[in-house]
Amino acid sequence: MSRVLTDAERRDWLKLARTENVGPVTFDQLLQRFGTATEALAALPGLAARGGRSSLKLASSAQVDRELADGAALGATLIASCEAAFPQALAALDPPPPLIWARGRVELLDQPSVAIVGARVASAAGQRFARGLAAELGQAGQVIVSGLARGIDAAAHEGSLPTGTVAVLGGGVDDIYPPEHRNLYARIAETGCVVSESEPGRTAVARDFPRRNRIISGLSRAVVVVEAELRSGSLITARLAAEQGREVLAVPGSPLDPRAKGTNDLIRQGAALCEGAEDVLRALESLRGFREPDREAFRGAPPEPDDALRAQVAALLSPTPVSRDEIVRATGAPAPAVFAALVELSLAGRCELLPGGMVAQE
Amino acid sequence: MSRVLTDAERRDWLKLARTENVGPVTFDQLLQRFGTATEALAALPGLAARGGRSSLKLASSAQVDRELADGAALGATLIASCEAAFPQALAALDPPPPLIWARGRVELLDQPSVAIVGARVASAAGQRFARGLAAELGQAGQVIVSGLARGIDAAAHEGSLPTGTVAVLGGGVDDIYPPEHRNLYARIAETGCVVSESEPGRTAVARDFPRRNRIISGLSRAVVVVEAELRSGSLITARLAAEQGREVLAVPGSPLDPRAKGTNDLIRQGAALCEGAEDVLRALESLRGFREPDREAFRGAPPEPDDALRAQVAALLSPTPVSRDEIVRATGAPAPAVFAALVELSLAGRCELLPGGMVAQE
Repeated sequence: MSRVLTDAERRDWLKLARTENVGPVTFDQLLQRFGTATEALAALPGLAARGGRSSLKLASSAQVDRELADGAALGATLIASCEAAFPQALAALDPPPPLIWARGRVELLDQPSVAIVGARVASAAGQRFARGLAAELGQAGQVIVSGLARGIDAAAHEGSLPTGTVAVLGGGVDDIYPPEHRNLYARIAETGCVVSESEPGRTAVARDFPRRNRIISGLSRAVVVVEAELRSGSLITARLAAEQGREVLAVPGSPLDPRAKGTNDLIRQGAALCEGAEDVLRALESLRGFREPDREAFRGAPPEPDDALRAQVAALLSPTPVSRDEIVRATGAPAPAVFAALVELSLAGRCELLPGGMVAQE
Repeated sequence: MSRVLTDAERRDWLKLARTENVGPVTFDQLLQRFGTATEALAALPGLAARGGRSSLKLASSAQVDRELADGAALGATLIASCEAAFPQALAALDPPPPLIWARGRVELLDQPSVAIVGARVASAAGQRFARGLAAELGQAGQVIVSGLARGIDAAAHEGSLPTGTVAVLGGGVDDIYPPEHRNLYARIAETGCVVSESEPGRTAVARDFPRRNRIISGLSRAVVVVEAELRSGSLITARLAAEQGREVLAVPGSPLDPRAKGTNDLIRQGAALCEGAEDVLRALESLRGFREPDREAFRGAPPEPDDALRAQVAALLSPTPVSRDEIVRATGAPAPAVFAALVELSLAGRCELLPGGMVAQE
């Protein structure tokens, strides 16, 4: 699978990834169906029209040029999921992010990594714990991945600056948020690595964070949650991590501390209890011999869906996400044909294909 | 099995229980072998001699008189494990405590109970949590059992004074320790119940606490540990509780708090995580339909051990506790004969029979 894209191919990958309604799931399905981004781009207007939309606007060549120039100006590297330099752990995700921008020591992305995430409004004790944990895991040879946020994230980066730290951003690789992390960001970009699925120059908005969180857990073999309230973003990262087959650990806390509600709940649900680096290393030990599945094995060109199937699939959608497998069962049609119909509907903006196999009406 | 002892029988039960080298295990084995305490007392000197000691001194009648008078003066009740008034949950222990003294509302001992135990040097937050948990569980109909110690124990009693609380003491039912709990003790004796396996007037010493802890967990269907350092008494209670088939719950805490080390470790080992009364009630729910096993089914008079077997058993003992089952396997002899030999050796002071099926050379 691994290769290096030509400049023209890379531009087409970028163009496809930046076209409206093309998320990682659709990108992946298109690549499976058409073999190359170039072929997929050519087919795109027709697919969208079949999905019910006649005017799908592809990303422009100027937009692609600008993004490549912006990235180059930052000294950042664009890596496509089919390339050898793409982090193996991310390539094995279903679907992988099509492309990532990386700034700094890109080689860190293929080293054994542990994510440390948690509350933005963290206690001093929680931050101290995160900093110490990151330092100890770093000394044990683990790269520490986090999200550059206030609180636990920042502490985790600080603790692992000397050994290797990776910040995954929701905005572009130059989107420093919060602003007081300017110094921390600069040190990470110099000695660690900054990664993003977004285009340089983009300021993160709320819907960028689930994608960011998926990369945080995707890069890591284990995710440690330090302080988290119920219904917080860190718990979403933990859930994604579990879905990705990552080891999930949580730091316990007093029932009287609302910042421990989320982590205690994770432990109750089966996350390993983390009191220090030893617990994380023990959990990693149990993963030894674990290999990311080879996604190539599942690939194959899907058959074309007909109008009747497409209409049937569209009728089955609702704003509440359901699994694609459920839709396959409800139609009784072959899964690849149903998936192809969903791609067409998603290109037309009639549904959203979510990582994790779910789909929702738009 | 249930009956009321005659005065003479009760005196013999007490005499047997108070004779040196007769612990609950030996008491139980003797009762199984000889049917009554009276018969066992008659056989005792001979058994001890066979074990290697010619001068076993039985408890005196004066000692028995004094204990009965002391208890009566306190308004306490002596209940034998064969009597209907003996708490069912304790009667089902293997072995049960032969006799308990109870002061106050004895009927509380047969109501659904939860033990709350923990650190003596507890944090204010831990004590607040224990008090609130006890109050909530009390309102849900649970009697709260604890050990009258400083810290978590006292808070648990305080929280459950209005609904029903049981204090189990290592010393006699009148042994108020620590002294500042005089008021708390008085309120428990009035509205709750104070229980002890020891004779009235006895001041607790270190070796009384394992027996006390066994009664705390034995009376309860679930044991909640709130704050405990590693290698603390509360963890022993938790272990006993697990051995007795009780539900064990632990309150999590920050890894930076040494008082959470013990409880976090319990959770790691499989104890249920407790953040409040709801967790305890859910654990009790899962015990519904649980019935204490009927110990009668396992009773039977054991055969006499011969000298060769007794010598073989004695040679297998060491100061490190081993299970009686291991000794049975090593000898290849029938278990009842090996147990009888162990009783003789224990009466001679050559070994100690520990609850939980372990035995150690003295």
